[in-house]
Amino acid sequence: MSEIYLDNAATTKVYPEVIQTITEALNEDYYNPSSFYRSASGVRAKINHAKETVAKALNVDPKELIFTSGATESNNTIINSTVKRGRKDFNIITSSVEHPSVMNVFKEYENQGVDVRYIPVDEKGNLDLEWLKENLDDKTILLSVMAVNNELGTIMDLASVKKIKDKQAPKCIFHVDYVQAFLKSTDPRINLKKIKPDAVSVSAHKIHGPKGVGALAFRKETKLKPLLLGGGQEEGLRSGTENTASILGFSKAVEIMGEKQADVEKKLRELTDYLAEQISRIEGSKINSPEDGLPGLLNASFKDVKSEVLLHMLDQKGILISAGSACSTHVKDSYVHGAIGLRPEYSHGTIRISMDETTTKEDIDTLLDNLKQAIKNLRKLTTRN
Amino acid sequence: MSEIYLDNAATTKVYPEVIQTITEALNEDYYNPSSFYRSASGVRAKINHAKETVAKALNVDPKELIFTSGATESNNTIINSTVKRGRKDFNIITSSVEHPSVMNVFKEYENQGVDVRYIPVDEKGNLDLEWLKENLDDKTILLSVMAVNNELGTIMDLASVKKIKDKQAPKCIFHVDYVQAFLKSTDPRINLKKIKPDAVSVSAHKIHGPKGVGALAFRKETKLKPLLLGGGQEEGLRSGTENTASILGFSKAVEIMGEKQADVEKKLRELTDYLAEQISRIEGSKINSPEDGLPGLLNASFKDVKSEVLLHMLDQKGILISAGSACSTHVKDSYVHGAIGLRPEYSHGTIRISMDETTTKEDIDTLLDNLKQAIKNLRKLTTRN
Repeated sequence: MSEIYLDNAATTKVYPEVIQTITEALNEDYYNPSSFYRSASGVRAKINHAKETVAKALNVDPKELIFTSGATESNNTIINSTVKRGRKDFNIITSSVEHPSVMNVFKEYENQGVDVRYIPVDEKGNLDLEWLKENLDDKTILLSVMAVNNELGTIMDLASVKKIKDKQAPKCIFHVDYVQAFLKSTDPRINLKKIKPDAVSVSAHKIHGPKGVGALAFRKETKLKPLLLGGGQEEGLRSGTENTASILGFSKAVEIMGEKQADVEKKLRELTDYLAEQISRIEGSKINSPEDGLPGLLNASFKDVKSEVLLHMLDQKGILISAGSACSTHVKDSYVHGAIGLRPEYSHGTIRISMDETTTKEDIDTLLDNLKQAIKNLRKLTTRN
Repeated sequence: MSEIYLDNAATTKVYPEVIQTITEALNEDYYNPSSFYRSASGVRAKINHAKETVAKALNVDPKELIFTSGATESNNTIINSTVKRGRKDFNIITSSVEHPSVMNVFKEYENQGVDVRYIPVDEKGNLDLEWLKENLDDKTILLSVMAVNNELGTIMDLASVKKIKDKQAPKCIFHVDYVQAFLKSTDPRINLKKIKPDAVSVSAHKIHGPKGVGALAFRKETKLKPLLLGGGQEEGLRSGTENTASILGFSKAVEIMGEKQADVEKKLRELTDYLAEQISRIEGSKINSPEDGLPGLLNASFKDVKSEVLLHMLDQKGILISAGSACSTHVKDSYVHGAIGLRPEYSHGTIRISMDETTTKEDIDTLLDNLKQAIKNLRKLTTRN
C-alpha cells in the first residue's frame, strides 16, 4: 500500500540530496572543527559556508546566527537570555497560540512570578492587535510571536505587530518562532526583510532537513546570553562540538527549498483551497484555518467524530494526518482550540492536514474519499449506540 | 598521503555501520515519533530500543535516561537542575581539571555568588582526596567529577570519591562526566556498576557515533529539572522532536564498541605504554599522563618547543594530533596545565596523542620518527635565533 503522507507540519521527509550530504559528511568530515590541522579547518570552512546559507535565508549576518539542536533550543535560548537580563518590574508578551516550546517557557516564568501577558486571538487564530496596543508598554522586554501557527496555519500579522512594538516599546526584543513559515511563505505579513525581528528560530526537520538541528538568528543588539556553556563554540554563544553533518544537511535543505519556494507555494495554495472547499461541503464540518493561512496546511473539525478514531481509520488506508500538533505528546484538548473558542463537539473531531511539494490532487481526492467514508461510518456507529 | 588520525579524544571516525544506520533512518524513519499513526509508533519503538541499549551500557533503567544534543547539554542540564533546587547556604564541588562544559557552568554560578569549591589535583591529574574529605560537607548539594580527564587521560578514583560522598554528604548529587571513559575502560575506579553515580553524561561522537547527540543518565531520586521546555518529549525532561537518526546511530555505536571493548583496551594499553616509553627517551620530554591512565591517550610536553608549530609540522606529514583539548577553541594556556603545575617551558610544548581501535604499532612508529625529527628541527631553529 502506498503511503499518502500529509503530516508535514509535524515533520518532513528528508530530501535525498540532504541524506547524501549528511552521509558524505559523516564519512569524510568527522574531524573536530576546533582542531588545529588542515582537515579540521576544512570542516570549519564547510560549517561557515552552511552558516552563510542559513543566515542569508533568515536575512541576518552569519555572525548573527548560531546553530542549535532545533527550534526548541532556539526558543528556550532567546527567551531565557532576554528574561535573565530583565531588571525589576518588567513584563513579557507572547500569543495564546504559541508552540509549546515558547508557551511552556513563558508559563514557567509566570509560575516564577514574572508578569506574563498573552495576546488573545480570534476564531481563526489571528492576533488581537488592539489588545496588543493596550498591553505592550515600555516595561515589556520581550515580545515573542510565531509567524505561522502550527495547528491552524494562521499567518500572523507580524508587520503590524512590529509597527506597534517600534512605536510603544522600541527597546523590547521582538522574537519570531519562524518554524512553520521558513521557506514556505512569501506573505508580506511575515517577510523577514521588512519586519527585521530581533531574533528568529527555525528548525531543519520542517524543511526536509534532518532532525536535531536548527538555528537561532539574532541581531547583535540582543546581546544573546548562551543557554549552554562549555568549550566556547559559536563565539561562546552555544557550546558543544558542532553537529557538522546535520548542519551541512540543514544548509542543503535550505538551498533546495529556497529554489522552488515560489512554485511550491502557488501549487499548495491551490490544493489547500480545493481541499477546504471540499471539506466545507461535508455535513457538520468546520474549517478552522483562515483563508489566507499557510498554503499546504488545513485544520478542520467534524462534529460528533473523535479525531483519534478518524486518524486510525485513515492510517489503515495509508493516509497519515495529525489530530493537531505532533510536537505535544499525549495532547488531549489543545489549548489552541481553547484560544480560538472551538466548542467541544467540534474540538474532539479536529484534524490537521499538512502537505508538501510532492502532494498531488490525486492524494487529496483519495484523502477526501476516505475521510467522507470514515466520518459517515463513525457517525453511523455513534447514532446506533 | 595516507592519514594517521591520532586525535580520537577530540572526536572519532564514525563507524560505517553507524553511518548505514543513520542513512536508513533518514530515509525510512522520518515520521515524527509523537504522531499517532503506526509508522510513527514504529519510530518510537526504535527510539525506545536505542534507549534500552544506551541505558544498559550506563547501568540505569531506560526511564532514567534522556537523549540530549551531546555531553555539553547533559552537563549543563544536571548542574543547572541541581543548583536550581538548592536552598540558601549550600556549596557545589567539582575538580579543577573538568571539561569546560562542566567548569564554565560552575564558574558562572561562582560569579553569581554560589560557594563553588574545586578539588585540587597532583601533577598527573589525580584528585586530592584528603582535600575532598575536608571540603565536602552536608551543605554540598552537587559533586561533579569526570571519570577520565580529556587532556591527560587520568582515570579518577571515583570509587573512593563515592565512599567519601556517601559518608559525608549522603544526599549530595554525584554527577560523573563519563565522556572520555564510556566503553573505553574497565578500570574498577570508574566502574559504573560499583560506583552508581546519581547522574552520568556521555556523548556519541567520542565512541564512533555521530556528533550532536548524547545522553544524560540519572537516578530517579535526582528529580531532574528540564533545561529545555516545550512539547514534553522524554517524559517532559527534554523537549524537542527526537533526533531519531542520530539516536539510532548512537545506539549502534554503543553496541559495536561494547562488543570489542576488552580487546581494544588491552591493545591500546600496550601501544600507549610503548609510546610513553619511547617519548620519555626524547631529551627534554615530560610525560604528563599517569601510567595507569586511559589506554590510548598520552599527553606529553617537550621543552623549548611550541606545540602549534609541532602540530603543523606533523600535519604536513599526515599525522593528526592535538595540543590539548579540541573542545576549547582558541586555547592558549590550558587551565589543566595550571592545575597540574606544569611549568611554562613545558606547557607551551604540550601535545595529546589519542588512538582508537584502528591504530597500529606502525602508526605509532611513524609518529615517533616524525616527532623526533620535528623536535630536532625546531630546537635547531630556536638555538640559531
